[in-house]
Amino acid sequence: MSDQHTTEITAEDRTAPAGAAEAAGPVTLINSFHVAPDRDQAFRELWGITSTYFIARPGFVSLRLHRAVNDDTAYRWVNVAVWESEAAFRAAHGTAEFRALVTAPGWAEFPSLPALFEVDTAIG
Amino acid sequence: MSDQHTTEITAEDRTAPAGAAEAAGPVTLINSFHVAPDRDQAFRELWGITSTYFIARPGFVSLRLHRAVNDDTAYRWVNVAVWESEAAFRAAHGTAEFRALVTAPGWAEFPSLPALFEVDTAIG
Repeated sequence: MSDQHTTEITAEDRTAPAGAAEAAGPVTLINSFHVAPDRDQAFRELWGITSTYFIARPGFVSLRLHRAVNDDTAYRWVNVAVWESEAAFRAAHGTAEFRALVTAPGWAEFPSLPALFEVDTAIG
Repeated sequence: MSDQHTTEITAEDRTAPAGAAEAAGPVTLINSFHVAPDRDQAFRELWGITSTYFIARPGFVSLRLHRAVNDDTAYRWVNVAVWESEAAFRAAHGTAEFRALVTAPGWAEFPSLPALFEVDTAIG
Protein backbone atom coordinates (compact mmCIF):
# COMPACT_ATOMS: atom_id res chain seq x y z
CA MET A 1 0.00 0.00 0.00
CA SER A 2 1.19 3.50 -0.78
CA ASP A 3 2.20 5.59 2.20
CA GLN A 4 2.50 8.89 0.35
CA HIS A 5 -0.95 10.14 1.37
CA THR A 6 -0.98 10.39 5.13
CA THR A 7 -3.34 13.36 5.52
CA GLU A 8 -6.85 12.29 6.44
CA ILE A 9 -9.31 12.56 3.57
CA THR A 10 -12.71 13.70 4.84
CA ALA A 11 -16.21 13.16 3.48
CA GLU A 12 -16.13 16.84 2.44
CA ASP A 13 -13.00 16.16 0.38
CA ARG A 14 -14.99 13.43 -1.37
CA THR A 15 -17.85 15.78 -2.27
CA ALA A 16 -17.87 18.16 -5.26
CA PRO A 17 -18.06 21.79 -3.99
CA ALA A 18 -21.26 23.72 -4.66
CA GLY A 19 -21.38 26.84 -6.80
CA ALA A 20 -22.88 30.24 -5.98
CA ALA A 21 -26.33 29.00 -7.01
CA GLU A 22 -27.78 25.51 -7.31
CA ALA A 23 -27.90 24.20 -10.86
CA ALA A 24 -31.37 24.33 -12.41
CA GLY A 25 -31.24 21.09 -14.40
CA PRO A 26 -29.31 17.82 -14.47
CA VAL A 27 -25.72 17.78 -13.25
CA THR A 28 -22.69 15.66 -14.04
CA LEU A 29 -20.11 14.60 -11.48
CA ILE A 30 -16.62 14.11 -12.87
CA ASN A 31 -14.56 12.42 -10.17
CA SER A 32 -10.90 11.65 -10.91
CA PHE A 33 -9.03 9.13 -8.76
CA HIS A 34 -5.30 8.76 -8.19
CA VAL A 35 -4.59 5.03 -8.29
CA ALA A 36 -1.19 3.38 -8.66
CA PRO A 37 -1.22 0.87 -11.53
CA ASP A 38 -0.60 -2.06 -9.18
CA ARG A 39 -3.56 -1.02 -6.96
CA ASP A 40 -6.32 -1.21 -9.55
CA GLN A 41 -7.98 -4.24 -7.96
CA ALA A 42 -8.16 -2.67 -4.49
CA PHE A 43 -9.55 0.54 -5.94
CA ARG A 44 -12.08 -1.31 -8.09
CA GLU A 45 -13.39 -3.25 -5.08
CA LEU A 46 -13.87 -0.12 -2.95
CA TRP A 47 -15.39 1.81 -5.82
CA GLY A 48 -17.86 -1.02 -6.45
CA ILE A 49 -19.10 -0.84 -2.86
CA THR A 50 -19.46 2.94 -2.94
CA SER A 51 -21.16 3.00 -6.35
CA THR A 52 -23.73 0.44 -5.19
CA TYR A 53 -24.80 3.04 -2.63
CA PHE A 54 -25.10 5.86 -5.19
CA ILE A 55 -26.91 3.84 -7.84
CA ALA A 56 -29.75 3.17 -5.38
CA ARG A 57 -30.24 6.85 -4.42
CA PRO A 58 -33.16 8.91 -5.81
CA GLY A 59 -32.17 10.99 -8.82
CA PHE A 60 -29.26 8.82 -9.95
CA VAL A 61 -29.29 8.61 -13.76
CA SER A 62 -26.12 6.95 -15.07
CA LEU A 63 -22.41 6.45 -14.64
CA ARG A 64 -19.36 5.52 -16.69
CA LEU A 65 -16.19 4.48 -14.88
CA HIS A 66 -13.14 5.06 -17.10
CA ARG A 67 -9.62 3.60 -16.88
CA ALA A 68 -6.74 5.44 -18.58
CA VAL A 69 -4.97 3.72 -21.47
CA ASN A 70 -1.66 5.25 -20.30
CA ASP A 71 -0.33 4.36 -16.85
CA ASP A 72 1.44 7.73 -16.53
CA THR A 73 -1.92 9.57 -16.42
CA ALA A 74 -2.07 11.47 -13.11
CA TYR A 75 -5.65 10.40 -12.39
CA ARG A 76 -5.95 6.97 -14.00
CA TRP A 77 -9.60 6.32 -13.07
CA VAL A 78 -12.39 8.80 -13.77
CA ASN A 79 -16.06 8.38 -12.95
CA VAL A 80 -18.58 10.43 -14.94
CA ALA A 81 -22.01 10.25 -13.27
CA VAL A 82 -25.24 12.02 -14.24
CA TRP A 83 -27.86 13.07 -11.66
CA GLU A 84 -31.36 14.42 -12.27
CA SER A 85 -30.67 17.49 -10.15
CA GLU A 86 -28.07 19.05 -7.90
CA ALA A 87 -30.51 18.65 -5.00
CA ALA A 88 -30.59 14.88 -5.52
CA PHE A 89 -26.80 14.82 -5.84
CA ARG A 90 -26.38 16.78 -2.60
CA ALA A 91 -28.89 14.59 -0.75
CA ALA A 92 -26.96 11.45 -1.68
CA HIS A 93 -23.76 13.06 -0.34
CA GLY A 94 -25.35 14.19 2.92
CA THR A 95 -26.09 10.89 4.59
CA ALA A 96 -24.30 9.07 7.39
CA GLU A 97 -24.01 6.09 5.05
CA PHE A 98 -22.08 8.15 2.49
CA ARG A 99 -19.78 9.47 5.21
CA ALA A 100 -19.08 5.99 6.51
CA LEU A 101 -18.37 4.63 3.03
CA VAL A 102 -15.87 7.26 1.91
CA THR A 103 -14.02 7.50 5.19
CA ALA A 104 -13.38 3.73 5.22
CA PRO A 105 -9.63 3.17 5.77
CA GLY A 106 -9.04 1.64 2.35
CA TRP A 107 -9.95 4.88 0.57
CA ALA A 108 -7.06 6.83 2.12
CA GLU A 109 -4.59 5.76 -0.57
CA PHE A 110 -6.86 6.93 -3.42
CA PRO A 111 -7.15 10.75 -3.37
CA SER A 112 -9.82 12.10 -5.69
CA LEU A 113 -10.86 15.35 -7.35
CA PRO A 114 -14.65 15.48 -7.41
CA ALA A 115 -16.18 18.38 -9.38
CA LEU A 116 -19.74 19.08 -10.46
CA PHE A 117 -20.66 20.29 -13.95
CA GLU A 118 -23.55 21.23 -16.18
CA VAL A 119 -23.60 20.12 -19.81
CA ASP A 120 -22.99 23.08 -22.12
CA THR A 121 -23.00 21.18 -25.43
CA ALA A 122 -24.06 17.63 -26.33
CA ILE A 123 -23.48 16.17 -29.80
CA GLY A 124 -24.09 12.58 -30.89
CA MET B 1 -5.91 38.05 -21.64
CA SER B 2 -3.98 36.03 -19.06
CA ASP B 3 -0.21 36.27 -19.28
CA GLN B 4 0.56 33.52 -16.79
CA HIS B 5 1.09 30.82 -19.43
CA THR B 6 4.00 31.92 -21.57
CA THR B 7 5.37 28.49 -22.49
CA GLU B 8 4.37 27.42 -25.96
CA ILE B 9 1.70 24.70 -26.00
CA THR B 10 2.37 22.27 -28.82
CA ALA B 11 0.02 20.02 -30.80
CA GLU B 12 1.54 17.10 -28.85
CA ASP B 13 0.51 18.80 -25.58
CA ARG B 14 -3.03 18.87 -26.98
CA THR B 15 -3.06 15.13 -27.72
CA ALA B 16 -3.80 12.40 -25.17
CA PRO B 17 -0.69 10.16 -24.78
CA ALA B 18 -0.92 6.59 -26.05
CA GLY B 19 -0.62 3.56 -23.81
CA ALA B 20 1.64 0.54 -24.19
CA ALA B 21 -0.85 -1.08 -26.57
CA GLU B 22 -3.64 0.38 -28.68
CA ALA B 23 -7.10 -0.01 -27.14
CA ALA B 24 -9.15 -2.78 -28.73
CA GLY B 25 -12.57 -1.09 -28.60
CA PRO B 26 -14.09 2.38 -28.31
CA VAL B 27 -12.15 5.03 -26.40
CA THR B 28 -13.17 8.13 -24.47
CA LEU B 29 -11.19 11.36 -24.44
CA ILE B 30 -11.51 13.36 -21.23
CA ASN B 31 -9.96 16.77 -21.89
CA SER B 32 -9.92 19.31 -19.04
CA PHE B 33 -9.36 22.99 -19.81
CA HIS B 34 -8.07 25.75 -17.53
CA VAL B 35 -10.25 28.78 -18.26
CA ALA B 36 -10.56 31.91 -16.13
CA PRO B 37 -14.21 32.67 -15.36
CA ASP B 38 -14.12 35.93 -17.31
CA ARG B 39 -12.72 34.16 -20.40
CA ASP B 40 -15.53 31.69 -20.99
CA GLN B 41 -16.70 33.36 -24.18
CA ALA B 42 -13.24 33.37 -25.78
CA PHE B 43 -12.73 29.72 -24.83
CA ARG B 44 -16.17 28.73 -26.11
CA GLU B 45 -15.53 30.33 -29.50
CA LEU B 46 -12.19 28.58 -29.97
CA TRP B 47 -13.55 25.27 -28.74
CA GLY B 48 -16.46 25.54 -31.17
CA ILE B 49 -14.08 25.91 -34.12
CA THR B 50 -11.92 22.97 -33.00
CA SER B 51 -14.87 20.70 -32.24
CA THR B 52 -16.35 21.33 -35.70
CA TYR B 53 -13.18 19.72 -37.06
CA PHE B 54 -13.41 16.65 -34.80
CA ILE B 55 -17.12 16.05 -35.29
CA ALA B 56 -16.55 15.63 -39.04
CA ARG B 57 -13.73 13.07 -38.68
CA PRO B 58 -14.31 9.32 -39.29
CA GLY B 59 -14.94 7.43 -36.07
CA PHE B 60 -16.27 10.34 -34.04
CA VAL B 61 -19.21 9.12 -31.92
CA SER B 62 -20.28 11.80 -29.42
CA LEU B 63 -19.17 14.59 -27.11
CA ARG B 64 -20.37 16.40 -24.03
CA LEU B 65 -18.78 19.72 -23.12
CA HIS B 66 -19.17 20.41 -19.38
CA ARG B 67 -18.88 23.69 -17.45
CA ALA B 68 -18.17 23.57 -13.68
CA VAL B 69 -20.84 24.86 -11.31
CA ASN B 70 -18.09 26.22 -9.03
CA ASP B 71 -15.71 28.89 -10.38
CA ASP B 72 -12.90 27.70 -8.09
CA THR B 73 -12.66 24.38 -9.96
CA ALA B 74 -9.11 24.09 -11.34
CA TYR B 75 -10.26 22.91 -14.75
CA ARG B 76 -13.64 24.58 -15.25
CA TRP B 77 -14.41 23.11 -18.69
CA VAL B 78 -14.21 19.39 -19.46
CA ASN B 79 -14.92 17.72 -22.79
CA VAL B 80 -15.85 14.02 -22.75
CA ALA B 81 -15.73 12.63 -26.28
CA VAL B 82 -16.28 9.05 -27.48
CA TRP B 83 -14.52 7.61 -30.53
CA GLU B 84 -15.14 4.29 -32.28
CA SER B 85 -11.49 3.27 -31.93
CA GLU B 86 -8.14 4.57 -30.79
CA ALA B 87 -6.96 4.36 -34.41
CA ALA B 88 -9.70 6.80 -35.48
CA PHE B 89 -8.87 9.06 -32.54
CA ARG B 90 -5.15 9.06 -33.45
CA ALA B 91 -5.87 9.71 -37.14
CA ALA B 92 -7.93 12.81 -36.26
CA HIS B 93 -5.04 14.10 -34.13
CA GLY B 94 -2.39 13.44 -36.80
CA THR B 95 -3.42 15.91 -39.49
CA ALA B 96 -1.97 19.28 -40.44
CA GLU B 97 -5.44 20.75 -39.90
CA PHE B 98 -5.49 19.59 -36.27
CA ARG B 99 -2.01 21.02 -35.71
CA ALA B 100 -3.00 24.38 -37.18
CA LEU B 101 -6.19 24.55 -35.11
CA VAL B 102 -4.68 23.83 -31.70
CA THR B 103 -1.58 25.96 -32.17
CA ALA B 104 -3.69 29.01 -33.02
CA PRO B 105 -2.54 31.91 -30.79
CA GLY B 106 -5.83 32.16 -28.91
CA TRP B 107 -5.40 28.69 -27.40
CA ALA B 108 -2.23 29.64 -25.50
CA GLU B 109 -4.15 30.97 -22.50
CA PHE B 110 -6.18 27.74 -22.11
CA PRO B 111 -3.88 24.89 -21.01
CA SER B 112 -5.51 21.48 -21.13
CA LEU B 113 -5.02 17.97 -19.79
CA PRO B 114 -6.08 15.51 -22.50
CA ALA B 115 -6.19 11.85 -21.44
CA LEU B 116 -7.58 8.78 -23.17
CA PHE B 117 -9.66 6.13 -21.41
CA GLU B 118 -11.56 2.91 -21.87
CA VAL B 119 -14.92 2.40 -20.19
CA ASP B 120 -14.62 -0.13 -17.37
CA THR B 121 -18.21 0.03 -16.10
CA ALA B 122 -21.37 1.58 -17.60
CA ILE B 123 -24.64 1.75 -15.66
CA GLY B 124 -27.83 3.53 -16.74
